Amino acid sequence: MKYDGAGYHGWQRQKNAVSVQQRVEEAVSALFNTPLTVSGCSRTDTGVHANCFKCNFRTEKRLPHATVVSGMNFFLPEDIAVTDSTDVPEDFDARFSCKGKEYIYKIYNGSLRDPFYRDRALFYRMPLDADLMTREAQALIGTHDFTSFRALGSNVKTTVRTVSHVYAERSGELVTFHIQADGFLYNMVRIVVGTLLYISEGKIERGAIPDILAAQDRTLAGKTAPPEGLYLNQVFY
Amino acid sequence: MKYDGAGYHGWQRQKNAVSVQQRVEEAVSALFNTPLTVSGCSRTDTGVHANCFKCNFRTEKRLPHATVVSGMNFFLPEDIAVTDSTDVPEDFDARFSCKGKEYIYKIYNGSLRDPFYRDRALFYRMPLDADLMTREAQALIGTHDFTSFRALGSNVKTTVRTVSHVYAERSGELVTFHIQADGFLYNMVRIVVGTLLYISEGKIERGAIPDILAAQDRTLAGKTAPPEGLYLNQVFY
Repeated sequence: MKYDGAGYHGWQRQKNAVSVQQRVEEAVSALFNTPLTVSGCSRTDTGVHANCFKCNFRTEKRLPHATVVSGMNFFLPEDIAVTDSTDVPEDFDARFSCKGKEYIYKIYNGSLRDPFYRDRALFYRMPLDADLMTREAQALIGTHDFTSFRALGSNVKTTVRTVSHVYAERSGELVTFHIQADGFLYNMVRIVVGTLLYISEGKIERGAIPDILAAQDRTLAGKTAPPEGLYLNQVFY
Repeated sequence: MKYDGAGYHGWQRQKNAVSVQQRVEEAVSALFNTPLTVSGCSRTDTGVHANCFKCNFRTEKRLPHATVVSGMNFFLPEDIAVTDSTDVPEDFDARFSCKGKEYIYKIYNGSLRDPFYRDRALFYRMPLDADLMTREAQALIGTHDFTSFRALGSNVKTTVRTVSHVYAERSGELVTFHIQADGFLYNMVRIVVGTLLYISEGKIERGAIPDILAAQDRTLAGKTAPPEGLYLNQVFY
């Protein structure tokens, strides 16, 4: 599944706001003509996008996978699209069976904002050095306690995660930051990006990431980068 | 100037709908603190975009060009952006001084729609051959009467235009059609694209474009392709 998150209050169902989950459940329920619930791989925040999002549901009735794809796309709004459908084992859960994810964060790094990147990338004027960002971020690779890169107040069993790759690359005005891990804490990617921006701005000194990790103190990292640049890019099982 | 035209009823001011011209005139009037009117290079249709759009205005007060750019972008909505500002001669008019334009038309040619291309490209499932489109379109190059590629009912002094280049290229799922001419009749690019799609579909035979041109008959060309794929891409003076 792919979605443009600009029009949604994240994946997860909300009481007074439209979520992607709601639209997907409406579509699958319409297609199978029975109320169905859908389990998603991640709770993306308001305004966050997905190039690849996995979800699963259980149903008595069977439809050919091609019909599931075309039928759901018929019922879904244009900013959400199902890309494929497959059978999963009985005990599969898109969220709990997930072995890892890659997020990307897009930064439109030009002197003037681009109308076509509004809501789809962070607009950031000060020149960024993608190689510097890549070098500074290498300290995140490996198994660490990421408490310093977790939103304050969020609860989770363990704050230890394993980051397998992280790099930034530039293509024209667009700087794209990639990070893959076995899991992410709440706002982790956006705080990592915010920290790299603070390093670029000299508000945090170069080489500081190992110390920030070790301190397990959110206040030492940069501010949380806004949601519009964030895309769930790959999900691994 | 650049704009995402999805939210506008074209460039030109409308009585009961929001146009790009209205937003630009509001911004420049706010910046100069006096009511100003703006002359634009082209009347783009509802939903048509611009990667490059030129307009001019006349004012008593002078502001540095950098201030015009940043000030207008401050007052403009996020789907319109001013990219530069310069002085023009007294008799310059963005529309009438124009010597030529390039339009592009984007086609998202995949089997499944992409949420990020909605409103920004035509979604077209049947596989397209960009090389075939390029070959077929070569017959448009040169000076011709383009009556067959003009919306019925549109009035203009002359229907003769000179096309200088025309080609299609593929990048992944995206097929981009380029056409440059000294001027365009109403809906000309969209009818050319619709004709190439009909040729791809076998509804119009290959090699037919010279005959369609010669016949000066709109009904022989393909249907008008929808606006969301069309971008004004370059303007020449």
